[in-house]
Amino acid sequence: MASKLLHLHICDQLRDLKAVSHESLVIGAIENAFKRMDEQIEREQMTRLVAGGCCALAVVYLLGKVYVANAGDSRAIIIRNGEIIPMSREFTPETERQRLQFLGFLRPELLGNEFTHLEFPRRIQHKELGKKMLYRDQNMHGWAYKRIEEDDLKFPLIYGEGKKARVMATIGVTRGLGDHDLKVYNSNIHIKPFLSCVPEVRVYDLTQYEHCPDDVLVLGTDGLWDVTNDREVADVVTEVLMGYEPNDPCRYTMAAYELVVRSRGVLKERGWRLANDKLGSGDDISVFVIPLGGPGNYT
Amino acid sequence: MASKLLHLHICDQLRDLKAVSHESLVIGAIENAFKRMDEQIEREQMTRLVAGGCCALAVVYLLGKVYVANAGDSRAIIIRNGEIIPMSREFTPETERQRLQFLGFLRPELLGNEFTHLEFPRRIQHKELGKKMLYRDQNMHGWAYKRIEEDDLKFPLIYGEGKKARVMATIGVTRGLGDHDLKVYNSNIHIKPFLSCVPEVRVYDLTQYEHCPDDVLVLGTDGLWDVTNDREVADVVTEVLMGYEPNDPCRYTMAAYELVVRSRGVLKERGWRLANDKLGSGDDISVFVIPLGGPGNYT
Repeated sequence: MASKLLHLHICDQLRDLKAVSHESLVIGAIENAFKRMDEQIEREQMTRLVAGGCCALAVVYLLGKVYVANAGDSRAIIIRNGEIIPMSREFTPETERQRLQFLGFLRPELLGNEFTHLEFPRRIQHKELGKKMLYRDQNMHGWAYKRIEEDDLKFPLIYGEGKKARVMATIGVTRGLGDHDLKVYNSNIHIKPFLSCVPEVRVYDLTQYEHCPDDVLVLGTDGLWDVTNDREVADVVTEVLMGYEPNDPCRYTMAAYELVVRSRGVLKERGWRLANDKLGSGDDISVFVIPLGGPGNYT
Repeated sequence: MASKLLHLHICDQLRDLKAVSHESLVIGAIENAFKRMDEQIEREQMTRLVAGGCCALAVVYLLGKVYVANAGDSRAIIIRNGEIIPMSREFTPETERQRLQFLGFLRPELLGNEFTHLEFPRRIQHKELGKKMLYRDQNMHGWAYKRIEEDDLKFPLIYGEGKKARVMATIGVTRGLGDHDLKVYNSNIHIKPFLSCVPEVRVYDLTQYEHCPDDVLVLGTDGLWDVTNDREVADVVTEVLMGYEPNDPCRYTMAAYELVVRSRGVLKERGWRLANDKLGSGDDISVFVIPLGGPGNYT
C-alpha cells in the first residue's frame, strides 16, 4: 500500500516536469536573468539618473553544454575545424518586423498618433491620397496593394533598409538592456515597449564532438561584424592560432587582439583605415575568443 | 535635359518596387485572397446562418513557380526522385504558442477572466497558491519557476499535448477560414480573435530541376496524415505510379485513390481497420496527387 502511495507521490511531483527538459530549464533561467537585469537597470536609471542601453551577449557553460544567449546586434560563432557554426542571430527592425508590427497593431496608442504599423516601400505624400500603394501588414510576408488613406500618411513604425532600418525613426537594434527612458526625438512617444530584453538562447553540445585546440567560440560586438565577416574572422583566428604552440594559452588572447586591431584599422590622414583602405569600424569593438577544447584534447 | 528628367521619373516609379520581388507580390496577393475569403465567409455566415470553419491549402502555379499556401492542419509534400520536400507546416496551439500567448498578454480582455496567457505543465490547484511552479511566458522558449498567484489558477490559454493541444480548451487548429461564431463552451468568450486566416506561402521553383513523371506534389487533409506519414505516402505513390505507363494520366488519380483507401482502412467487426489492424482515420481524407513533370519531361 505504502509503495503504491509513494509511486503516486512520485508521479505527482514528476508531473511538474512534463516535457520540460533539463535544457529548457537552463534556457528559462537565462531568459529570466535577462529580464531581472533589465528591471535592475530600470531601478538604477531612476535613482542614479543614468541614461542609455546596450545589447547583451552571454555564454553559460553547464553540464557539457554551451548556452549562448543574445539580445541585440552582437554575434557569436563557433569555428570548428575551419567550419563556421552561427550561434546567434541579430535582432533588428527587419528581423523582428512582425513582432513589432503586431504590437503596434494591437496597441496603437503606443504609436502616439505619429506612426503607422503598416510598412510601405517609401514615404507617402499627401497628394497620393486615394491612390494605390504597396504595403505589408503584421501578418504578411508578401507585399500587396491598398488604397492610401489618411492614416497611411503617418511615418512607418519600421523604416529604412539594412543598417539604416529604424524603429520609429530612432533605434536600429530591437533587443537589449536598458533604454527605459528613450523617446522619439522631440516627442513623448516611448521606444521601450517595442524593445525586448529577452535573449534567444542557442545550445551547443560540447560532448558531441571531440574538439581540438583550434576550435573556438568567438563573441564580438557590432564593431567587429560591421567590417569583418564570419569567414574573415575565422581566417584571422586560424592564422593567429597557427603562430603559437597549441598549449600556449595566450594564443586566444592574441587572436582576439588581432581581430580588434584589424577591424579598427590604422590612423591615416583621412581617419582610421582598414588594410583595404575602407573606413575602420567606428563602433565599439569587443572580442572574446574562447577555446572549446583544451590542449589535452589535442589529437 | 529630357533624358535626365525621364530618368528621374523612372526612378520615382520604381521606388515603389524597392526590394519588392515578383515573388513577394504573388505571396502578398495570395495572403490577401485568404483574408478576403475569410471576410466573405463571415458575411455569408451571418446572412445564411451557416456555422463552422475549415483549414485551407491552396496551390498557385505562376511563371514557372509553384506557390503552396497553407492555413491549418493540412499538409503538402513534394516527392522528387523518391526524396521528400515539405511544402507546408501545420498550425497548432503548440507551433503557434508564442503568437497566441502574445495576443492574450496584450489583450487580456479576450481571455474573458477565465483563461491565463501563461503556460503551465499541468493544472494548478487552489491549495498550491504561494508555492513555486514551472511556467512559460509569451517571450520565453525555456521554462522557469514562479510563485503561484490567484491569476495562475485560471485555465491556461494553451493546454494539452500533441493532437490534444487546445486553444481555450476548444480548438486544436489555429489557422483556417470561418469559425467566426465559435465560442468557448458554455461561455461568451470568442475563439476567432486567436485564429489566423493568413497562410504560410512556400515557393518551389519548377525550373531549377528537370522533373520526371514520377515527381509529384501531394496535398492531403489531416485524415491522411493522422495515420500515414510522409515516407509511407511517398512509398505508396511510387508503388502505384510504377504500375502504369508514364504517359497514362489516370496514374495520379489512382495514387490519390490508393492513399485515401489505405488511410480509411477496411470495415471489420470492430470498426474501420488499417492493414496493421490499427484504427483507420476518422477524419476527412482528401488527397490530390499533382504531377510536376509531364510525359514530355520523361528521360
